[in-house]
Amino acid sequence: MCRFLVYKGREMFMSDLLLNADRSLIVQSYKAKERTEPLNGDGFGVGWYAPDIDPIPCVFTSTSPAWSNRNLFRLSEKIRSVCFFAHVRAATKGAYVSEFNCHPFQFEQFLWMHNGKIAQFDKIKRKLRESLEDDYYNFIQGTTDSEHAFAVFLNKLGNRISDYSSEDLCNALNSTIQQICEWQRAAGISDSSYLNFAISDGHNVVASRYVTNPEKEPPTLYISSGERFITHAGKFTMEPSLRHPNAVIVASEPLTSNRVPI
Amino acid sequence: MCRFLVYKGREMFMSDLLLNADRSLIVQSYKAKERTEPLNGDGFGVGWYAPDIDPIPCVFTSTSPAWSNRNLFRLSEKIRSVCFFAHVRAATKGAYVSEFNCHPFQFEQFLWMHNGKIAQFDKIKRKLRESLEDDYYNFIQGTTDSEHAFAVFLNKLGNRISDYSSEDLCNALNSTIQQICEWQRAAGISDSSYLNFAISDGHNVVASRYVTNPEKEPPTLYISSGERFITHAGKFTMEPSLRHPNAVIVASEPLTSNRVPI
Amino acid sequence: MCRFLVYKGREMFMSDLLLNADRSLIVQSYKAKERTEPLNGDGFGVGWYAPDIDPIPCVFTSTSPAWSNRNLFRLSEKIRSVCFFAHVRAATKGAYVSEFNCHPFQFEQFLWMHNGKIAQFDKIKRKLRESLEDDYYNFIQGTTDSEHAFAVFLNKLGNRISDYSSEDLCNALNSTIQQICEWQRAAGISDSSYLNFAISDGHNVVASRYVTNPEKEPPTLYISSGERFITHAGKFTMEPSLRHPNAVIVASEPLTSNRVPI
Amino acid sequence: MCRFLVYKGREMFMSDLLLNADRSLIVQSYKAKERTEPLNGDGFGVGWYAPDIDPIPCVFTSTSPAWSNRNLFRLSEKIRSVCFFAHVRAATKGAYVSEFNCHPFQFEQFLWMHNGKIAQFDKIKRKLRESLEDDYYNFIQGTTDSEHAFAVFLNKLGNRISDYSSEDLCNALNSTIQQICEWQRAAGISDSSYLNFAISDGHNVVASRYVTNPEKEPPTLYISSGERFITHAGKFTMEPSLRHPNAVIVASEPLTSNRVPI
Repeated sequence: MCRFLVYKGREMFMSDLLLNADRSLIVQSYKAKERTEPLNGDGFGVGWYAPDIDPIPCVFTSTSPAWSNRNLFRLSEKIRSVCFFAHVRAATKGAYVSEFNCHPFQFEQFLWMHNGKIAQFDKIKRKLRESLEDDYYNFIQGTTDSEHAFAVFLNKLGNRISDYSSEDLCNALNSTIQQICEWQRAAGISDSSYLNFAISDGHNVVASRYVTNPEKEPPTLYISSGERFITHAGKFTMEPSLRHPNAVIVASEPLTSNRVPI
Repeated sequence: MCRFLVYKGREMFMSDLLLNADRSLIVQSYKAKERTEPLNGDGFGVGWYAPDIDPIPCVFTSTSPAWSNRNLFRLSEKIRSVCFFAHVRAATKGAYVSEFNCHPFQFEQFLWMHNGKIAQFDKIKRKLRESLEDDYYNFIQGTTDSEHAFAVFLNKLGNRISDYSSEDLCNALNSTIQQICEWQRAAGISDSSYLNFAISDGHNVVASRYVTNPEKEPPTLYISSGERFITHAGKFTMEPSLRHPNAVIVASEPLTSNRVPI
Repeated sequence: MCRFLVYKGREMFMSDLLLNADRSLIVQSYKAKERTEPLNGDGFGVGWYAPDIDPIPCVFTSTSPAWSNRNLFRLSEKIRSVCFFAHVRAATKGAYVSEFNCHPFQFEQFLWMHNGKIAQFDKIKRKLRESLEDDYYNFIQGTTDSEHAFAVFLNKLGNRISDYSSEDLCNALNSTIQQICEWQRAAGISDSSYLNFAISDGHNVVASRYVTNPEKEPPTLYISSGERFITHAGKFTMEPSLRHPNAVIVASEPLTSNRVPI
Repeated sequence: MCRFLVYKGREMFMSDLLLNADRSLIVQSYKAKERTEPLNGDGFGVGWYAPDIDPIPCVFTSTSPAWSNRNLFRLSEKIRSVCFFAHVRAATKGAYVSEFNCHPFQFEQFLWMHNGKIAQFDKIKRKLRESLEDDYYNFIQGTTDSEHAFAVFLNKLGNRISDYSSEDLCNALNSTIQQICEWQRAAGISDSSYLNFAISDGHNVVASRYVTNPEKEPPTLYISSGERFITHAGKFTMEPSLRHPNAVIVASEPLTSNRVPI
């Protein structure tokens, strides 16, 4: 069911988030702890913002496992950013391994990731697609429920796509989740859907931790915020902030010890 | 715009069609002759039937160029069949290189290939998908116009999908082409669509060579039939047949000298 | 440290060995049981003989994990053989993921696989290569200790490479192991080397289970032999043989219940 | 026989060198002009320096053709550097497509590329390897003559590898070429070897254009230098410099109009 992480804060190297932290995303790719199935070897993706160049994030994806991708290792030592998305994938049955199915998905300034799954997605896929404006309809390249959910989100933002507030992003995410639940009900699907999403435009980060069935537990999601995420004697910690926090990490599994589940 | 070949006849080695003939499909992958753009390096696929095992064809596809794929070279020396499909791809803009976009496409006993393109496909994609029954709607994995056209074909066959005559296949192909043309007209698209298709179930092979604009030339397509396709002094030839031909090759470019354009 | 299997017996489908058995090699690729580290996701390879065509085996390898390779799934339903080699790889550090490093390795009629590792291989690599005849020196494509050990084996067979008895193969394998141990001693390497090898020419299969340090346990290796390897009510079993066995499986982990550790 | 380019000068975007110039390296990957065989589709690589981070260059390589690699397109819009290496490969027979065989090769602060081939390389390979110190012997991962030539270069630099002048680099390159010629002569090889090499450490760039047989033409190599490489009305030009040039491009084919063959 995948693992992901979002970082926003002072400029950091990708390697510190992906490779160097104790339970870095690379470690989660072969030995995720807080899941029954520890393996996330069906491709990966990283996205990051370079606001001094332009608002469009860069994305690097591959269907190879993250743990053996030499390009990823080499790039992560050289790429610094104030905002990262990273994702390791465990393919849900039927949504095959393909570059088109690697997260994060990107549309204009937005990055999107999903950890979870929409139950019996094929039963609502047609209705979902019909609801989309042409631009978002044709934007979809792959077969994942995740990318389709992104298209729903973009559709919900609608004509505010280039002029929105933080609240608009929150509302669009809420509304995306409600819409999916509604289609599920209409199709008579009672299996649980797991809807941990993350969306960013490089300035705002919005994330959800949600399961349709209140008796089930959604996949874990941790948030850690503070002054900055730094190394003390080889260990990464989030240094506490006295004021408004300058750094935040949202991740399927904690990279650090001072964390709070969402 | 891709190159393809179909073979039906006595059991042959894949290597004779792919590697050994003068202008084999491997040669066409880097040096196609009868096109302005000689390169077909955006993946390839082969499909073949093993009727002594079951009616479902085997498919081997890759996004790597055919000319350097060691698995293809090794397999083709060992795989024999009475019916082959093979395709080398030059990606149309917007339909990216992906395993999901490699031909031949397979559904149950059918293999399908396309050489050409549906003009401004995005403008009719939504209408096309809406017309499909759920099974064929959900069958589509990739983004090509070609795979979508296959779904239209399957939809046209409808409930005759497991009980049909050769004529039913011809009619379904005709009807697929007409339907695409109709959607094009309705969308006000006047650019030419190139619709060379091939379909087989291992017993029947149906192929079309078609362009929507009668003033344009469709991509080349040659047919060669005879007793058998054999080597004489290192050169492949189709040996003439006095009776009903036992072997037939339909290909974007002739592998042999005694051929007739379709 | 990889997992492998060899089958020799009546003609079987590759799918029965790779996919259908309870603890098939595909299962071992993501959930190997008899190892601390359950993951073998750094590529795979299969090899098989088609004696009615020629004595050279076919090999299909990929750096993608076996569990998600669609070509492997499709091919394994159609390929039947009397002799299979199959291998899933967990890369040893320093011997990177590459098609050149996928087992089985092939030279003329031979297939070779290794499960284990030669300790501090770089310290004996130069001496090893110097010992090789030009043909075997230039045969090496990758960086693994395993492929280099194969070259040593071929060198030991020497001019008997096209005219040998079963004993010659056993002797060459023994002699390969002794030679490696000798180079290790000469280089002052005391770390344990794990030398489970399998070699075949389609008729003979020779396998070793060996560790240089007698106090350590070599990787598991099981042998199962009988009349044939068949399905009884959805479960695979090796049917006992009253006479000389007609089928044999040598595998890192048992696929069947009636097995004997080597 | 490959195409390459080196840039050193003011910080530029990779996209301007790879994508935007008229005859960018991407164009050369499918339509090289100054060669009989226009195709360089057997993988590619880019390397660049980030001197504000550390002296080790970053390398991004792939066996896929450059023209369809989405990661390359996305990265090149975001990566800026004062020194780039880029290479598109046409594999020489026998040196198969593999990530290990993609240029540029990197060792510590050095990047190395080759356009050409060492004739009958297998005949001198053993002698070449024997001449190498252990570090460079074990550094070699792939099978190309090019990577082996790099090891010879490093060996020639010897203990000056972290303390050298520009002249030392020139001398080591000269001495590498002479050494290869000497081995060729000793092995009785009279076929021509083509030895266009480029080496950099981020500060110095040294390149050779050389063929062993004085009657043959080495592969083209152009040099262009000036104040800076800029866009005027959509066309890239090298702006002339009145003083010591600040920008230099060395490339198999000119990207610009004001160039001088080496």
